[in-house]
Amino acid sequence: MDRSAFGEAEPSLEEKREALLALLREVKATSAVLARADHATRQRALAAMADALEADRDEILAANAEDLRLAEETGLDAPRKERLTLNPGRIRAMADGLRALVDLPDPLAPRGEMWTRPNGLLIERVPVPLGVIAIIYESRPNVTADAAGLAIKSGSAVVLRGGREAHHSNAAIAASLQKGLRAAGLPEKTAVVVPWTDRELVEVVLTARGLVDLAIPRGGHGLIQYVVRTAQVPTLETGVGNNHLFVDRSADFAKATRIVVDAKTDRPAVCNALETLLVHREIAEAWLPEAGRALVDAGVELRGCPESVRILRAHGIPVREATEEDWETEYLDLILAVRVVGGLDEALAHIARYGTGHSEAIVAEDRETAEAFLAAVDAAAVYHNASTRFTDGGEFGFGAEMGISTQKLHARGPVGPRELVSYKYVVRGNGQVRGFRAQDR
Amino acid sequence: MDRSAFGEAEPSLEEKREALLALLREVKATSAVLARADHATRQRALAAMADALEADRDEILAANAEDLRLAEETGLDAPRKERLTLNPGRIRAMADGLRALVDLPDPLAPRGEMWTRPNGLLIERVPVPLGVIAIIYESRPNVTADAAGLAIKSGSAVVLRGGREAHHSNAAIAASLQKGLRAAGLPEKTAVVVPWTDRELVEVVLTARGLVDLAIPRGGHGLIQYVVRTAQVPTLETGVGNNHLFVDRSADFAKATRIVVDAKTDRPAVCNALETLLVHREIAEAWLPEAGRALVDAGVELRGCPESVRILRAHGIPVREATEEDWETEYLDLILAVRVVGGLDEALAHIARYGTGHSEAIVAEDRETAEAFLAAVDAAAVYHNASTRFTDGGEFGFGAEMGISTQKLHARGPVGPRELVSYKYVVRGNGQVRGFRAQDR
Repeated sequence: MDRSAFGEAEPSLEEKREALLALLREVKATSAVLARADHATRQRALAAMADALEADRDEILAANAEDLRLAEETGLDAPRKERLTLNPGRIRAMADGLRALVDLPDPLAPRGEMWTRPNGLLIERVPVPLGVIAIIYESRPNVTADAAGLAIKSGSAVVLRGGREAHHSNAAIAASLQKGLRAAGLPEKTAVVVPWTDRELVEVVLTARGLVDLAIPRGGHGLIQYVVRTAQVPTLETGVGNNHLFVDRSADFAKATRIVVDAKTDRPAVCNALETLLVHREIAEAWLPEAGRALVDAGVELRGCPESVRILRAHGIPVREATEEDWETEYLDLILAVRVVGGLDEALAHIARYGTGHSEAIVAEDRETAEAFLAAVDAAAVYHNASTRFTDGGEFGFGAEMGISTQKLHARGPVGPRELVSYKYVVRGNGQVRGFRAQDR
Repeated sequence: MDRSAFGEAEPSLEEKREALLALLREVKATSAVLARADHATRQRALAAMADALEADRDEILAANAEDLRLAEETGLDAPRKERLTLNPGRIRAMADGLRALVDLPDPLAPRGEMWTRPNGLLIERVPVPLGVIAIIYESRPNVTADAAGLAIKSGSAVVLRGGREAHHSNAAIAASLQKGLRAAGLPEKTAVVVPWTDRELVEVVLTARGLVDLAIPRGGHGLIQYVVRTAQVPTLETGVGNNHLFVDRSADFAKATRIVVDAKTDRPAVCNALETLLVHREIAEAWLPEAGRALVDAGVELRGCPESVRILRAHGIPVREATEEDWETEYLDLILAVRVVGGLDEALAHIARYGTGHSEAIVAEDRETAEAFLAAVDAAAVYHNASTRFTDGGEFGFGAEMGISTQKLHARGPVGPRELVSYKYVVRGNGQVRGFRAQDR
């Protein structure tokens, strides 16, 4: 906590609010400087930020040790402690992430959208930075560097508010990033960490209309809901993926098994992992035992509808009975819900009811069924004969990403540099007016 | 008010809430039917809606007469009564507006964005409808038809909540539009009016996450602020335009005068009208009297900074002294604030402080100054040597529009059919998986 501005006494919440608003105003003013910076400057800044992170490794690890010591005191659970922990390899990975952004195309480069109107006006639609992006996130300190890098690549300043338990780590990382910004001739207030961790201050950020142009939550369901409900600034909802795989009666069994195992087990804790398997009744007897065996061998716990439970148990495959809650749950764990459905329509209805609009897949050799599925499912990414795990900025060819948007406004799916910009219309004339009265003059 | 579902007694607010939520669920379900409708069907629906409006002219005028009678009772002010009034010409204009949408390009047509990844995945980015769009608006009943038409052109269902004083008119227009939808084979719940006018029900619409995909306020500053602050569904902020014209020292005086008069007087009550004139000090003495005279002749009241007041009064041109409030005000009337500035930087600072990000213009012959202005100003539309009045979907060549977005997310500037859609990624594979474990099998 930065008490310097207030002497030794902890400032009151009201003082912090005022100080934070003043900081946000500074960041907003700073964002205009960054908006005018050319791509080469932004590239230099990213490279310098990466170098600074590596140069400051010991300071960052010391700050992280302090967070881990406090985590010990407060009894933080093991998975969160794991996510909080930094080491030289993770710091190098942050630096490499910043370096990987350098050579991505400039999202602010003109896109050649220009046309002339009959009255001679030349209209151009040009990409422009969003301005100030606020990121509200949880335990992982690497988000501090990743999010700052993406914002700066896209010409926007960034306000970072990470988890309370990672505050020392985040502040140390941000201090290092600011050195990089200064080295590239950019103001250090281009990337700032909210200096206090009071929950009430998140609300200050989320309601700072005119100062914050976009707020992005990165974390679990609770955090995302809090941000979306509280924010008066525009938000980008990311991340929750209650994803389904529908295995049609026309499926190639080997493909189906390979895909279900990959989608569930490759990295179960991420948002593009599979959570529910829907199986066409006509092939359930023939394929489900093979799939169930492969999943159980890969360490997956199965929770099935009565029909799938009957089939699986008949083949000696362990399975629990699923409840309504299972269809609603994004496990983020080695657990898979399984349901036998009558066909495409029932699969679509299940997905429409329980899906979160993230990633949905069908395995089918019948092209018509596959195309009907791809057309009907309302999600950021829909797959035919491929794993849901590909919903990822890198896998789509966008380079890094800020998250996977599950909303329909602005950006859907992977949010890369190209999605983190806005646009404006530049109109060039030679005296054009619209009204008759004025033209008569 | 539709009391039929509840017999004669007025339902309680809680009953209305429940009924409205049930209606929203129906609209959401219906939106999937519309989403699958091809462009020809949507075109037929628009044409049939236009025909129905004209066929039902007498019913609509009778409903409007009832609203006007109630407006008399409640003492509605004259301008609002004027906006509320329908006549055969206005009904024909609504129908023609719908017909004009028919031949606009299909915003859901594929845009050819398709690429193949090294692993063979074929990724396509395809436009998709938003789903359900809610429009919250004020007096003008024509918005009912305009907004419904734009939504349906874009493949989205629409929930309409207009001003209380226009409720009978809006309900009659919607009933007519629904006939058109039925005639084209689309469900009538594709376009619905909220059946009660209680203010509390607006909140039900604005917080219906999962049922409403986008809420758009159309109206004055108060309505827009209410919607943006209350909504938990995504919103598109439209309309407030505190627009500036900066006349540089390099300006062509004749162009400058023509543009300032047009921008202020062509249609002062609309959001792209000019509100503040900024004049470079070096030409203030030479040009301001000419401009002031032309403006006053056109019926404009001037409110100036001390320097402009001195210059104008020296030439016998009437002008009031401006207060801080004048710089902040979107007059929407024949009033213009005038300020003399030291140059480009001072003009930019004024615009950054008081502008609402709508339309900002410079008149200058010096190319470098003009380009610096166009690059630095953060607004939906920036103009060089042209009137701000061109910020309009029709003038930009987009056809109709839902309003002018002043936010940076999703859509900025005129919101036409192309801006009223989302997209999804369709990924076609032949068994691709991401993880090594699964690939090893």
